[in-house]
Amino acid sequence: MTNQEKALELHEKLQGKLETVSKTPVRTREDLALVYTPGVAEPCKVIAKDPAAAYTYTMKANTVAVVSDGSAVLGLGNIGPKAAMPVMEGKAVLFKEFGGVNAVPICLDTQDTEEIIKAVTWLAPAFGGINLEDISAPRCFEIEERLKETLDIPVFHDDQHGTAIVVLAGIINALKVVGKKKEDCRVVVNGAGSAGVAITRLLLTYGFSNIIMCDKSGILCDGAEGLNWMQEKMVKRTNLAHETGSLADALKGADIFVGVSAPGIVTEEMVASMNSDAILFAMANPVPEIMPDLAKKAGARVVGTGRSDFPNQVNNVVAFPGIFRGALEGHAKQITDKMKLAAANAIAALVSDEDLNEDNIMPEAFDPRVADVVADAVKRNIR
Amino acid sequence: MTNQEKALELHEKLQGKLETVSKTPVRTREDLALVYTPGVAEPCKVIAKDPAAAYTYTMKANTVAVVSDGSAVLGLGNIGPKAAMPVMEGKAVLFKEFGGVNAVPICLDTQDTEEIIKAVTWLAPAFGGINLEDISAPRCFEIEERLKETLDIPVFHDDQHGTAIVVLAGIINALKVVGKKKEDCRVVVNGAGSAGVAITRLLLTYGFSNIIMCDKSGILCDGAEGLNWMQEKMVKRTNLAHETGSLADALKGADIFVGVSAPGIVTEEMVASMNSDAILFAMANPVPEIMPDLAKKAGARVVGTGRSDFPNQVNNVVAFPGIFRGALEGHAKQITDKMKLAAANAIAALVSDEDLNEDNIMPEAFDPRVADVVADAVKRNIR
Repeated sequence: MTNQEKALELHEKLQGKLETVSKTPVRTREDLALVYTPGVAEPCKVIAKDPAAAYTYTMKANTVAVVSDGSAVLGLGNIGPKAAMPVMEGKAVLFKEFGGVNAVPICLDTQDTEEIIKAVTWLAPAFGGINLEDISAPRCFEIEERLKETLDIPVFHDDQHGTAIVVLAGIINALKVVGKKKEDCRVVVNGAGSAGVAITRLLLTYGFSNIIMCDKSGILCDGAEGLNWMQEKMVKRTNLAHETGSLADALKGADIFVGVSAPGIVTEEMVASMNSDAILFAMANPVPEIMPDLAKKAGARVVGTGRSDFPNQVNNVVAFPGIFRGALEGHAKQITDKMKLAAANAIAALVSDEDLNEDNIMPEAFDPRVADVVADAVKRNIR
Repeated sequence: MTNQEKALELHEKLQGKLETVSKTPVRTREDLALVYTPGVAEPCKVIAKDPAAAYTYTMKANTVAVVSDGSAVLGLGNIGPKAAMPVMEGKAVLFKEFGGVNAVPICLDTQDTEEIIKAVTWLAPAFGGINLEDISAPRCFEIEERLKETLDIPVFHDDQHGTAIVVLAGIINALKVVGKKKEDCRVVVNGAGSAGVAITRLLLTYGFSNIIMCDKSGILCDGAEGLNWMQEKMVKRTNLAHETGSLADALKGADIFVGVSAPGIVTEEMVASMNSDAILFAMANPVPEIMPDLAKKAGARVVGTGRSDFPNQVNNVVAFPGIFRGALEGHAKQITDKMKLAAANAIAALVSDEDLNEDNIMPEAFDPRVADVVADAVKRNIR
């Protein structure tokens, strides 16, 4: 049986990977009178007077909505809300299994920006946080920014920020391995969608100053045609020398390549043209921008991918469960850059100096310390 | 410690009565590759081609959204969405504990009819059914009717139909006890909100023809002032003799009283004025329209209330879990009158002829047969 067949069989057997479960038994009239009427009126009355008490008496304390419109699901594209459900259920499963956070998949039957904003705003009271997922760019930027302005609970687009945090964690450790400083590095980010933009923004916030963004048309440059509003913003902060040209041009002399783009588009020649001790994160899925062995042969020192069958897997599961747990426990209103940087540093620090080497820059996804360490770092940086 | 204090303490200890739980462990890379990427893409692709496969591969198969706007919560009134959460979580707990149905509390941050309709429409793809809860009348009627027109999953306002089904079950058995026929009965329903209207409609559908609705202003009559649009509809089908007057007037010679109104408003004199072998369902909570002992003393033969400390408790928990389980298992698009009547008959039939007497017309809420029997009756009546 292939893995595909196994996955299909498992999903059919389970009829949904997630279930809702009562934390307390309801076996007697007394149970019923506490869990439901008349006893349930008591917490209702307290919350009616003091809405913040919802964190004391309801699942808002520890529950996230995983919201998608199905417009950019995995590599499958715009498959719509029903077909997105297995992914959102899977994400909800990971929230609980890795972070102990309750999560509810919500797949919206609209792909209109304004309608998505309204829907999330209206369903927010029951939840302590909103994890946006698989919403296509550039709509995802506006949806997240607008919701962050109006909601009093954290809103976090994991395709953007989860990816950015884990990539930054990997880069922090990779720089230690190669002995370079962020100030000296030329960074090329290929792919200018949700992940590419968020990675670039977080790297700028972290202190990288020389970043070139590329997409299918090559180097993104201020004044170029066809940029969306977010890309217009990004070219004001990147490529300050106004370079033009192809990805190959951008990579000449680069220290770091971050790919969230397409399979096989980086050649050995391009890698050979990079600076010595080059770092590559080739995260196209399932086939990377360049296979790790080829990149190494061409002179790369550290190579990460999105895959679990190569060293240095960039996997969001080391970030989002702990980030939300920390934010929820601290009753955070937002997930700020400070919290994101703290999470990246905490993830990087999980690899000890002794264990750190070019094939071991990331903590294991199943390392049981990860979520606790990330949650703690996030919580300590809420204010 | 009082029961109120116990309830508050339990809610504080639990921080939410409901949790989301994975049905399958995620302990290895292999687990992760089946539950999430890359394996999860397989069911996504199947559903993208055939949306009905969502019932095969996702929790839509067995999950209900419990949706409220917090506008009419228990006897507490309009306490808003956050304060409504303990009730909606409690309802979700009962769905699972009594019916094996997953349920997600959704408390909407809007009380606008159009916005509620939009919100529920947009969040529908993830769910197999919508249980509306504690939404004030007459908005609840329009919201439910409009959603039933457009959604392809069952929409069921439990305050209306769950109550109506259980009351009908009780009346079916009470008529057996007193030896009367529905065709001969004069029925008075006091309270013309969501429950009163739904009870009246279901009794009409069942075959009662002589029903008088009352509210605070007395008997509802065609042509009266101040009726809402649903009450206008109801007076065309009830009180066909165009009676006017007070509740006391309505009750003279009545065979059945159904109260979903206010504590203590039925006097012993009113009960004494009813026909012999009178049946009363005095369901105001927590204090009934008349206490059972007083009603019995005044001549009533069968008295039911909403309370568990008196005989003949009218408790929706014998209806909604089984109704949704049957509807979900049968992939019903709607919960029709035929299904509601089948559910009422099935609930009534759970009390055997031997056990049936004036103090035992309803099955026990914790009778383990209830949800199965109701689900089965509903499923057999989907088409």
